[in-house]
Amino acid sequence: MEEQTQPELASPEVQKRIRDSFDRQGLMGHLGAYLSVIAPGRVHILLPSRPEVTQQHGYFHAGATSAIADSAGGYAGFTLFPENTSVLTVEYKINLLAPAEGEHLEAIGTVLRSGRTLTVCQLEVFGVQGSRRTLVAAGQQTLICIDPRPER
Amino acid sequence: MEEQTQPELASPEVQKRIRDSFDRQGLMGHLGAYLSVIAPGRVHILLPSRPEVTQQHGYFHAGATSAIADSAGGYAGFTLFPENTSVLTVEYKINLLAPAEGEHLEAIGTVLRSGRTLTVCQLEVFGVQGSRRTLVAAGQQTLICIDPRPER
Amino acid sequence: MEEQTQPELASPEVQKRIRDSFDRQGLMGHLGAYLSVIAPGRVHILLPSRPEVTQQHGYFHAGATSAIADSAGGYAGFTLFPENTSVLTVEYKINLLAPAEGEHLEAIGTVLRSGRTLTVCQLEVFGVQGSRRTLVAAGQQTLICIDPRPER
Amino acid sequence: MEEQTQPELASPEVQKRIRDSFDRQGLMGHLGAYLSVIAPGRVHILLPSRPEVTQQHGYFHAGATSAIADSAGGYAGFTLFPENTSVLTVEYKINLLAPAEGEHLEAIGTVLRSGRTLTVCQLEVFGVQGSRRTLVAAGQQTLICIDPRPER
Repeated sequence: MEEQTQPELASPEVQKRIRDSFDRQGLMGHLGAYLSVIAPGRVHILLPSRPEVTQQHGYFHAGATSAIADSAGGYAGFTLFPENTSVLTVEYKINLLAPAEGEHLEAIGTVLRSGRTLTVCQLEVFGVQGSRRTLVAAGQQTLICIDPRPER
Repeated sequence: MEEQTQPELASPEVQKRIRDSFDRQGLMGHLGAYLSVIAPGRVHILLPSRPEVTQQHGYFHAGATSAIADSAGGYAGFTLFPENTSVLTVEYKINLLAPAEGEHLEAIGTVLRSGRTLTVCQLEVFGVQGSRRTLVAAGQQTLICIDPRPER
Repeated sequence: MEEQTQPELASPEVQKRIRDSFDRQGLMGHLGAYLSVIAPGRVHILLPSRPEVTQQHGYFHAGATSAIADSAGGYAGFTLFPENTSVLTVEYKINLLAPAEGEHLEAIGTVLRSGRTLTVCQLEVFGVQGSRRTLVAAGQQTLICIDPRPER
Repeated sequence: MEEQTQPELASPEVQKRIRDSFDRQGLMGHLGAYLSVIAPGRVHILLPSRPEVTQQHGYFHAGATSAIADSAGGYAGFTLFPENTSVLTVEYKINLLAPAEGEHLEAIGTVLRSGRTLTVCQLEVFGVQGSRRTLVAAGQQTLICIDPRPER
């Protein structure tokens, strides 16, 4: 679904804007998640396996899987937003396709359609064990671009 | 939407089954979430406010909001499942309706339709500040009931 | 879920606005659907059973069920919009809970949260046979309020 | 998203099974929709423009767009199901991305994950005008495979 060409990276300004925002998300740090790719319209977030992010069977919790998927999509949209705007998630839907296991999860958010007000992203999460990647969740998300004084 | 009558509680056996499973969810403990009501077909989970569960503007992160909503729905379904079965989330959809703020969040999962294989739940999350309750998220979830050797 | 008090009806102006718009929806007439209740923030649409709206097993087709649910939600939101605006569906999610059968379907759209730009509705569809009503579908929908020159 | 190689077609038996089922869907014929491609795990349905499938602004109605998307996904899953089983839509979510216009719509359902009980499909709908194709809707769907005596 994703072309395996070398990813074009976002500009340094955009990368800094995304990283600064990510660093203010207490939840991402608390889960141990971090940004791995920031391309225009596409962002990857990694989440290493640890007991703090599991559900009752020892797999990654759907809530952790969803949290990084939601953030990856939100920041994918944010890479395309004008300066001095903010991004909010309006809604998302996610299917948990397979037990989420592996050394880490990789969430990829990709912009499907970018509008002035609303942006729609595709969400994918892979379980990664060595060289093996399994699609463990897939979803779709709607974002809204807001000006500095949040109203919607 | 929810009738404000005194909640009928689930049997001690069912309550124990839910609490034991919840306690094995590393993520719930790591976020600081806990079970508050376990009724037949309805479960409430509370999440106190703290920096570890925020997004970049200081509100509760959509991922944390969703995580407790997903768990509340999953356990609401689980209260109605036969003994010796497990519950898995097939998918859910959630709308973030308002900034998620307050002393704590209260997620309520309520079974809409319970089937032999599939169960559908309504998800609601309220931001609670003193006596003020605001609906901050609403969603819908599909669960699957699986026998001890997980297959689907 | 719905309070069984006598429904407060929308003003004649709003009712007319909704009926005029509905009459311009070629699909609703083609399916044989019609408006039955227009209350502030809540609209009901009925769809009588006939072969033209079935799927391969003779039940109402999920597409017909969804079409009236989507319209009921859209018009529920529209009852609360300012004059001279339009309504567009951003997205919706629907669970088909039971075989959709009966003399007719009744779709009910109810506003959960009304905002300046975005409105979120709950969608319910009942199969009605005599005095028996069965919830056959439930969903959630996001609408956008647009000014006369559509942009989003 | 879809590789532009020549599509491998489904076996004649599977094609016949899909066409027979489609022909029993009163709604598809009533809308004027027809099957165009039946490949393993992927089905395309076309819907020509006509007043009977419009909403109030003259575009294709979201209900018509969704109906063909739902059927395309359902039959995409059905191509991979064992003989003598049936397919039911559990739920789907769809974003309406742009005004749905053109000479016809093309809905493409593609299996993302096929399981013994549940199958998840990606849904895409394009507005086609001459050689111009615009993605007008995108969604995700969950299907269930049932044995001849429907239970779920």
